[in-house]
Amino acid sequence: MNISELGEFPLIERIGRRLPPYRNDVRVGVGDDAAVLEWDSDTYQLATCDIQVEGVHFLPESITPYQLGRRAAAINLSDIAAKGGIPQHCLVSLALRAELEVSWIESLYDGLREEIAGYGADIVGGNVSKTEGPIVVDLFLLGEVSREEVLLRSGASPGDVVLVTGWLGEGSAGLALVQQPDLPVAKEEGEQLLGAYLTPTPRVWEGRAIAQSRRATAMIDVSDGLSSDVGHICDQSGVGVRVWADRVPISGPTRRVAQLTGQVDWALAVQGGEDYELCFTVPQKAAQELAAEVEEATGTTVTCIGEVLPAEAGRWIQLPDGGEVLLKRGGWDHFAAGA
Amino acid sequence: MNISELGEFPLIERIGRRLPPYRNDVRVGVGDDAAVLEWDSDTYQLATCDIQVEGVHFLPESITPYQLGRRAAAINLSDIAAKGGIPQHCLVSLALRAELEVSWIESLYDGLREEIAGYGADIVGGNVSKTEGPIVVDLFLLGEVSREEVLLRSGASPGDVVLVTGWLGEGSAGLALVQQPDLPVAKEEGEQLLGAYLTPTPRVWEGRAIAQSRRATAMIDVSDGLSSDVGHICDQSGVGVRVWADRVPISGPTRRVAQLTGQVDWALAVQGGEDYELCFTVPQKAAQELAAEVEEATGTTVTCIGEVLPAEAGRWIQLPDGGEVLLKRGGWDHFAAGA
Repeated sequence: MNISELGEFPLIERIGRRLPPYRNDVRVGVGDDAAVLEWDSDTYQLATCDIQVEGVHFLPESITPYQLGRRAAAINLSDIAAKGGIPQHCLVSLALRAELEVSWIESLYDGLREEIAGYGADIVGGNVSKTEGPIVVDLFLLGEVSREEVLLRSGASPGDVVLVTGWLGEGSAGLALVQQPDLPVAKEEGEQLLGAYLTPTPRVWEGRAIAQSRRATAMIDVSDGLSSDVGHICDQSGVGVRVWADRVPISGPTRRVAQLTGQVDWALAVQGGEDYELCFTVPQKAAQELAAEVEEATGTTVTCIGEVLPAEAGRWIQLPDGGEVLLKRGGWDHFAAGA
Repeated sequence: MNISELGEFPLIERIGRRLPPYRNDVRVGVGDDAAVLEWDSDTYQLATCDIQVEGVHFLPESITPYQLGRRAAAINLSDIAAKGGIPQHCLVSLALRAELEVSWIESLYDGLREEIAGYGADIVGGNVSKTEGPIVVDLFLLGEVSREEVLLRSGASPGDVVLVTGWLGEGSAGLALVQQPDLPVAKEEGEQLLGAYLTPTPRVWEGRAIAQSRRATAMIDVSDGLSSDVGHICDQSGVGVRVWADRVPISGPTRRVAQLTGQVDWALAVQGGEDYELCFTVPQKAAQELAAEVEEATGTTVTCIGEVLPAEAGRWIQLPDGGEVLLKRGGWDHFAAGA
């Protein structure tokens, strides 16, 4: 069996099962947004990595090296944000073709540096290799979080509600614009969507505000698509979920692109990946106040989009007409056929 | 200018100059074997990454996935060893082609896991991406070291001598055998060299013993070739050096391969990379005792191969006939013409 037949997530599960038991200082290992490691009696260290491969995650003709640097940094920052953490130190691994211009690498580094520094972290090392193939930009990011504030995928309970930051679907709509630049979208709207796709904003400050409230129960970033990422929370918390399609926050420009490309807007927003918003769960009673606090602290909207159910109640999307469909993993699987 | 014209080390220097000043908790950033970061009042954290690219660092037909896993782990462990550190946590980034067999990945992971676990560390996370190009195996390894024991590239002084663990040149001789499998070398000798090249032994225990002695002044691992790596110590310590060619430890099998391939054996040993031995400096008076202690503790031979000079005295190799030649960077530059 090859890995496209098995699929990305089963592969990761299968690899995880082959690993020996962790030492005592590993709170969470393979299978969350970041590893959670003992630091001192008050603090955990967070460690994550995310790789960007030319032709898979980006096309050089559609993204500048500066944007690529910002994007690679943002994707890793988002993993630290999903744990409620503070980014600290970054290492950069590059595989580059020998004929690449030095100015290209410098622009890439400018983007990396500015994005990383924007959240108070440092690039402290890395390595550079030649390749004959696609460019690879692989970042390793360390962060920290108080033990009392850390958020995992595994803490959601029935009675919680599901909230998200920002808009969903802008990443997918931006990708559609990259693939079909002729779509008749107003210039400003197009720029908004392309910006969301090419240089997403990691929700570091929002993640901190959510974690510091100590009222959220689980969190993840929406990198693979909400349906897939909510599914990860369900898997690891042992719960079910109902997402209300008509509550999913979808921006005007995203609705326009959905219409122009013949997609149902909520389906685009729920299935599409690349949003890098935070999805988190909170006891129902605390949700409204927490959402208001995060909006107040960060200026980012927070929307309640669903409710956590017992596992046996299943995973559902409630459609605008009141009907329900199964919430299926519809997001990004690198090795799925056609992905 | 493209990066092959500039070269790997000038590129890294140029990137380093574009980075902002580090925060206070970065003891050493870009430009050593590993970043050295504040942990607590007694301890530094070490962080390193090293990437293996198919077609550049390995050919699938010459290395099994299990060996590749062990090799990728060993190369990163060697960076922690070079600081005198204890390996702790590892993240694994993979770019894989969709048609790769799952069993191939599992064997790769078996090699990674066994090598990492052999030094007491854990694989705690990572990510997997599709690629249409060369396989990429990128590891990120964290470790720790006592503040009083950490060894940098920058501590050597005139009056120190230069020591190395194990044999030099076996990595290069093994690579020659991979490239020319018909070389008439005895089976056992061939296996020794191929083992040294394909699955080098990181000198973690030796690094610990050297660091714990608190008598060494600088250390580096010989990954790019002794001439290049001793040059890094000279650059960062502001010193010169004289390496005595006839003292460089060269094994019988390496001498055989040098002869069969028309190379001068000491030149092969000094210029060749991929050895992953430790090269360190010690005040001359302490050298013999320290070498004996390390040999006693680890079973690995330690050889004195040169002396540290003032910077203005230059960098030299003293030939077996007493003549001297300039010690030039002759090791591995990924982007050098023909590399």
